[in-house]
Amino acid sequence: MSNPLPFGERLARAVAEKKNPVCVGLDPRIASLPPTIRPPNTSDLAEIASAYEHFCLNVLDAVCDLVPIVKPQSAFFEEIGPEGMRVLERIVRAATQRGLLVIMDAKRGDIGTTATAYASAFLGSGPPGSSSFSPFGADALTVNPYLGADTLDPFVQRCDAINGGLFVLVKTSNPGSSFLQDIVSSNESISERVANQVESLSFARRGDAGYGPIGAVVGATYPEQLAAMRARMPSAWILIPGYGAQGGAASDVRHGMDPQGLGAVVNSSRGILFAYEQARFAAADWRHSVRNATLAMIEDLSTTS
Amino acid sequence: MSNPLPFGERLARAVAEKKNPVCVGLDPRIASLPPTIRPPNTSDLAEIASAYEHFCLNVLDAVCDLVPIVKPQSAFFEEIGPEGMRVLERIVRAATQRGLLVIMDAKRGDIGTTATAYASAFLGSGPPGSSSFSPFGADALTVNPYLGADTLDPFVQRCDAINGGLFVLVKTSNPGSSFLQDIVSSNESISERVANQVESLSFARRGDAGYGPIGAVVGATYPEQLAAMRARMPSAWILIPGYGAQGGAASDVRHGMDPQGLGAVVNSSRGILFAYEQARFAAADWRHSVRNATLAMIEDLSTTS
Repeated sequence: MSNPLPFGERLARAVAEKKNPVCVGLDPRIASLPPTIRPPNTSDLAEIASAYEHFCLNVLDAVCDLVPIVKPQSAFFEEIGPEGMRVLERIVRAATQRGLLVIMDAKRGDIGTTATAYASAFLGSGPPGSSSFSPFGADALTVNPYLGADTLDPFVQRCDAINGGLFVLVKTSNPGSSFLQDIVSSNESISERVANQVESLSFARRGDAGYGPIGAVVGATYPEQLAAMRARMPSAWILIPGYGAQGGAASDVRHGMDPQGLGAVVNSSRGILFAYEQARFAAADWRHSVRNATLAMIEDLSTTS
Repeated sequence: MSNPLPFGERLARAVAEKKNPVCVGLDPRIASLPPTIRPPNTSDLAEIASAYEHFCLNVLDAVCDLVPIVKPQSAFFEEIGPEGMRVLERIVRAATQRGLLVIMDAKRGDIGTTATAYASAFLGSGPPGSSSFSPFGADALTVNPYLGADTLDPFVQRCDAINGGLFVLVKTSNPGSSFLQDIVSSNESISERVANQVESLSFARRGDAGYGPIGAVVGATYPEQLAAMRARMPSAWILIPGYGAQGGAASDVRHGMDPQGLGAVVNSSRGILFAYEQARFAAADWRHSVRNATLAMIEDLSTTS
């Protein structure tokens, strides 16, 4: 086993060491890349892949001493094909080498051996041929619960085997998340049922800091539900999307924290990656904009918690 | 636009031409490959990728004159990393060249521009640089509705633009699918709400045969629900997993068909791919086992419909 500590503990230590809960989302998009590194030929996937790699490596360098964790969004790498997946693999490794934890945001979900295949695709860090090997080698993975609680089991088993973590989609940040997630039956909403399952899985595996490896995704855009979910899942880390570009404020995000200001990581993607587009972060070098936006987010979260 | 006909129509024509609704699932697994093509060194991902490509191409050759459609399971290709994704890309192209339609079984789901990225990763067939380009280039994609009806829109827009199709997870074949999908509120289950959305999207786009491009996944393992879902979604193709290895019989599957025996495709993966393991399909050449198992499934479905 190559990760000596359970994921919940690793994350607690990383947040304590960096003194903030900021997660930088790695969502490269061709049209938003800084003009100096945007490839002119957008029909050449190898060129785009190379630009994404250059961009993400520079972002990692700009933030790795500041934040505990990063979250690559698999979709933007898949969009440019196998070369994109090669870059994704390299970005995860580069983040790990820089001392960052990595959540793979791939929102996978399937049954039985197919779920097992997704789990070993994304979670693990051993050498090829070992049982803890994973080509994409992240510390944690986002997963979708629609197929049923039983379909989380293969992912949880993988986490148990390699000290990995999960973030199960509970209440997402989009306007239409109410369509299924807020439906109530027998006094419990769908998202609450999923949350109960997450808490049960993490409670059974909680470590010294009180948190287990099975976390939840709860958006910043529904602060009351975030507070209720924090109370419902005392053993679960919460990954909070929706800060910044999607409208969530620091005062919303704190509802996801425990009284010690722990228990949640707060993601920002566009607001940091493409900070060069914002007047207040304008700089001669786009990497300074990334760093300044990260520092501003850390400051914003610290003054309200 | 490279697909001249809407997906619902293409599928209707393909099923009529081949005179059966069989979908062959392409789920390569290292431990189940025929011994003659199983690579000895399972720590070398390039060797495994090469074996998967050889295996899948031979399966396509064995079934392409028999069935209308195939369904690669993305997880098994992702499990072996970027090289696996390269093979997945080639397998889709090879299937298309053999006149087969392709459902990418990737069960993606996300919000906004991320959903758009997944849609353009998997749906399309134009040349690189064109708006209809997709590196993985399938005809249809399986998608997960947990994030909300609004999150289907980017996928639907992509289908409208390139004549692609979707199969939305409605009622899955696994034992725990009841966990969320069967929860009832205001006299409607979660899976019924999703089904209503699917029907609405497909009804607005239905073609001459009465079927639109937005389909549903409903497992063969719950035949009564399958019959009810058939009635609830008269404009939607149904993709039926769970036949064979998972326990669904031909008599169960027919509940997903309309009175003309149309409107559904029935998937089998293990039962066909690894037929060499079954005594009744034993042959000197494993490809004959694949073909014989496919013919047996076609016969089984035709005699009960």
